[in-house]
Parts: sequence; C-alpha cells; structure tokens
Amino acid sequence: MKIRFLCVGGLKKAFFREGVEEYTARIMRYAPFEMVEVREVRSTKKTPREVVMKKEAEGLLARTGPRDFIIALDERGTRLDTPAFAERLERLTSAGGSADVVFVVGGAWGLDASVTGRADLVLRLSDMTLPHELARLVLAEQVYRAFTIMRGEPYSH
Amino acid sequence: MKIRFLCVGGLKKAFFREGVEEYTARIMRYAPFEMVEVREVRSTKKTPREVVMKKEAEGLLARTGPRDFIIALDERGTRLDTPAFAERLERLTSAGGSADVVFVVGGAWGLDASVTGRADLVLRLSDMTLPHELARLVLAEQVYRAFTIMRGEPYSH
Repeated sequence: MKIRFLCVGGLKKAFFREGVEEYTARIMRYAPFEMVEVREVRSTKKTPREVVMKKEAEGLLARTGPRDFIIALDERGTRLDTPAFAERLERLTSAGGSADVVFVVGGAWGLDASVTGRADLVLRLSDMTLPHELARLVLAEQVYRAFTIMRGEPYSH
Repeated sequence: MKIRFLCVGGLKKAFFREGVEEYTARIMRYAPFEMVEVREVRSTKKTPREVVMKKEAEGLLARTGPRDFIIALDERGTRLDTPAFAERLERLTSAGGSADVVFVVGGAWGLDASVTGRADLVLRLSDMTLPHELARLVLAEQVYRAFTIMRGEPYSH
C-alpha cells in the first residue's frame, strides 16, 4: 500500500512547494508516499476549458491502476470532517491489500467527469473554490493529520 | 471601511508567512487591509485548554470595536461557497459605512464562545479541522478571490 498524490502540473509558487514538502515529508514517516505530476494543458482560444480538462484527465487516468482506490478532489464531492477522513483512511491503509490510495487533484479548471466518475470517493475539502495548489497543501496537511489521529500521536505544529 | 485579520499568534512557518503575504498584498489593491496578531497563550498543565481560549478571547475582543462587522472562523460555522462569500463581502464593503470587516482566526484550540457569540457571522472554511496557520492562508486567498469576483477581474494564479 502506497499513498499517491496524482496532480495536474507542478507548484509554481515556492511557498506552496515548501508547504506541501513539509507535510508530505511527515506523511512518509507513516506510509510510502509518491507525488506524481502530469502535464498541465494550456487553455487557449482554440482549446476551451472542456478540452483542457479532458486532455488532463487522459494524463491522470493513464497513471492509475485498476486496483487503486481513487479519491478525487472536487468541490461538489462528499464532505468529511477530519475524524471521518482519518477513519476512512485507516480502513484503506490497514486493509492489508496492495491497493494504493490515490488522491487526484485537478488543474486550474478542476477535474473532468471521466476522473470523478472513475473515483471510488469524490472528496470536498471545502465548499469554497480552492486553487489547485492550495487544495494540494490542504490535502497534504489533512493526510498527515489523519495519520497522527490513527496512531494516537500528537499533532506537531 | 477596512478589512482586518485579527489572529492569535504569529505564523511560525516561513511558507505560511509568505503565502499569507502574497494574498494580503493582493487584497490591498482592493481595500485598506490590516493584520493584527494578539498574544498566543501557552497551554500548560496548570492552564487547561478552556483557560487558554478564554484568555486569548479577551485579547481578541479588546481589539474589536462596537461597529466592526465580525466574521469568526469556526469549523461549526456557516458554510458559504465562493460566490456566496463574495456576495456577502460585496454587501459589507459597498455599504459605504465606516464599519470594518474583521475576520477572527483563533489559536491552536480555536475560538472561545465569547468570540463566536459576539460575531456577526461564524464562517466555516472547511468541515475539516484546519490548523490556524492554514486557515489564515485559505482565508487570505478567498478574500483576494472574492475581490476579483466582485470586480469582474480574472483570478491571477
């Protein structure tokens, strides 16, 4: 079992990169972790938003396996509070199987329906529209926090 | 009218400081902005969580005025999506009055009931428990985003 973040594009701002690195380094204390970034598709007048999302979705889905448990981040997804999220992650990571838990974060326009449709869980981090870089940071912090809850360890600020 | 963030303690991690600075600098293009940080109270065995929160609340409330419109961040507050948040902020900032809009972010244990009780709006950024540093970053980004929506300007990544 591995935790994987499957994301569109890199983090351009240093503070987002450093923040995500801070929390993913902490996640690695608890579980094997992998960050996968697929190519961001630039939208132009000739490639409308829907086409960008569809192309990015192809890149994302190409990096998933049939046995992966896929959690797609979307603002229309299921709301979980932190204890419920930790419980869900506990069940997934302690199942003893080899299936990876893959969190999918879309690009500037979010995720195409082909990705949310394939997902085992569509998760809403906030009712607010978060930029994808910020969503990745919130996700990394929450996964770290979930592990501290699962293990009964104190949260380190 | 001024936008004020009224927070417990400083931001210890550089990436949170830089991220909040990035978005608050953008907010200042649209409205006068002020960051106020009150003293964080250390919890010890002799000062349980409730006492810490009460003391921090006194510090926070001392920095509010009777005419301020106070929005307290709390994970049990009202959920607003980004358009609804922007609309609310638009009404508050265009009222033409001199009342400040004050966002209150608690410390490690969140906000005491004396603060949420005084608030004109208790706002939930997420169902998940965000550390206060991260809540401050999400808030700064959302206030910036709300201004771009109010003014019909493109969101700058």
